[in-house]
Amino acid sequence: MSLTVVGSMAFDEIETPFGKSGKIIGGSATYIAWAASNFLDSVNQVSVIGEDFPKDELDELSKKGVQLEGVQMKQGEKSFYWAGRYHMDMNTRDTLATELNVLADFDPMIPDSYQSSEFLILGNLTPQVQKSVIEQFKVRPKLIVMDTMNFWMETALSDLLEVIKMVDVLLVNDSEARQLTGEYSLVKAAKKILTMGPKYLIIKKGEHGALLFSENHVFFAPAMPLDDVFDPTGAGDTFAGGFIGHIARTKDISFENMKTAIIVGSAMASFCVEQFGVKRLRGITRDDISERLDQFVQLVNFDIDLV
Amino acid sequence: MSLTVVGSMAFDEIETPFGKSGKIIGGSATYIAWAASNFLDSVNQVSVIGEDFPKDELDELSKKGVQLEGVQMKQGEKSFYWAGRYHMDMNTRDTLATELNVLADFDPMIPDSYQSSEFLILGNLTPQVQKSVIEQFKVRPKLIVMDTMNFWMETALSDLLEVIKMVDVLLVNDSEARQLTGEYSLVKAAKKILTMGPKYLIIKKGEHGALLFSENHVFFAPAMPLDDVFDPTGAGDTFAGGFIGHIARTKDISFENMKTAIIVGSAMASFCVEQFGVKRLRGITRDDISERLDQFVQLVNFDIDLV
Repeated sequence: MSLTVVGSMAFDEIETPFGKSGKIIGGSATYIAWAASNFLDSVNQVSVIGEDFPKDELDELSKKGVQLEGVQMKQGEKSFYWAGRYHMDMNTRDTLATELNVLADFDPMIPDSYQSSEFLILGNLTPQVQKSVIEQFKVRPKLIVMDTMNFWMETALSDLLEVIKMVDVLLVNDSEARQLTGEYSLVKAAKKILTMGPKYLIIKKGEHGALLFSENHVFFAPAMPLDDVFDPTGAGDTFAGGFIGHIARTKDISFENMKTAIIVGSAMASFCVEQFGVKRLRGITRDDISERLDQFVQLVNFDIDLV
Repeated sequence: MSLTVVGSMAFDEIETPFGKSGKIIGGSATYIAWAASNFLDSVNQVSVIGEDFPKDELDELSKKGVQLEGVQMKQGEKSFYWAGRYHMDMNTRDTLATELNVLADFDPMIPDSYQSSEFLILGNLTPQVQKSVIEQFKVRPKLIVMDTMNFWMETALSDLLEVIKMVDVLLVNDSEARQLTGEYSLVKAAKKILTMGPKYLIIKKGEHGALLFSENHVFFAPAMPLDDVFDPTGAGDTFAGGFIGHIARTKDISFENMKTAIIVGSAMASFCVEQFGVKRLRGITRDDISERLDQFVQLVNFDIDLV
């Protein structure tokens, strides 16, 4: 059940209408690992950090079974840093600062001990870096899942299209799906994206849930209605981590099992947004997850026999 | 299984990025009746029309079992008329013209033959008119469902709050729920609205589905992902018609059955948006509805035993 996670491990500084986080731990690979490690004994992490990255954060991840051999630590350099401010609707945000630092020339290395990974998830990174990771696997993983963002559509489209061709599952949000295809209808956008290489497409719609498409099927997972979304940062990565964590645990890559996996992803994301950063994710137990999944059953399960 | 429907029967003239409808039949009671009549032998209609309202439209409704005794026809007057233009996102629209005509002094009359109605649905109308309808029933219907809109929150709030107190199920859209409560969070808004009188609240979110709230439960019905939304006019009323049609057919006002009812409502709305006005609703069969409901099961049904 080996899973390799590739992405950033970073510092975030977040402002929302509810408060300021100060400088906290963030990064796509951090969120994915925190989520996926709930379902697996071991997670193979690939990332890059500066010498400013807190040792105790790494220790906590280790305790959750996250292997750090693939995490490069650059002496004398600083970790990736992002600062942003959310608007009142918590759906839109302004970037206040981005410092690439160690991420600027990130050259990921897949340790030999990761080579047998059956599952690979590529968090949002330069398409070229994502491609280099795939190419380093001597045996192609059974399932490759990839996240990306609009920035690469604007600055590195041909590289992006090349990597998209190589993966099994693409994760984008609704506006990215529209941007990538020029289609306003998400159904039409999905049909186009499924001709670009991936067999499965997940379109994340934030508080409006997520859609899973294959050539002939579509499935919808709602977001859990919450009293408040405290901080949406990392919700998409946490969703991805729950998704791949469930798939890697069950080793079942059928569409039917992917349905369950995006419900698991939604459940994990619903924890993430309750606190700044990974704070809530640190505290959850197996029972918390089971209870939240039961709430999802209540939220969407209905009796059609009556009709 | 008697149901009384109150609302407008009118002319609409719609422009979308896909085309212009010309002058077609619309109105909340028209859509509700077209949807609900699929589930019932008979629907008691209450409305007002001018002498310009086409006779063959009334005949078609009659054929579907819609009783017209409560539909007043005002000789020498014109029917309500609305013209609007949708933006590219199909979620927002500009009103180009509104002519109240017969609706300006609508004084609804509940015929004796409607008095035994167990179910009552009040389409969007002046709160005072809605209240007058409720008061005309000698025996209170088993379930009263009410739709409204932001316009009455701005112009007749105290009247509106008075009627809201008298109903069992309130239907609003997301922005109206926010406006009525001053709460951005829909969960918090729902909690507030459920202290205003109704035992159940449905928040419609257009293409993002609908939420059903009771004091202790929440349920979510997605909208069917479609290649194109051709014309969203009347989708909310059609949803309401499917909802009350299912409830009136099954005579079951439990939360569990309301879950199924909002899935039925979503299914009916998914037909409505495929064509201008009620065009698509005219053509659907019982088989079309069953097939669409099966698609909803596929869309949201997942196997949680695997988790």
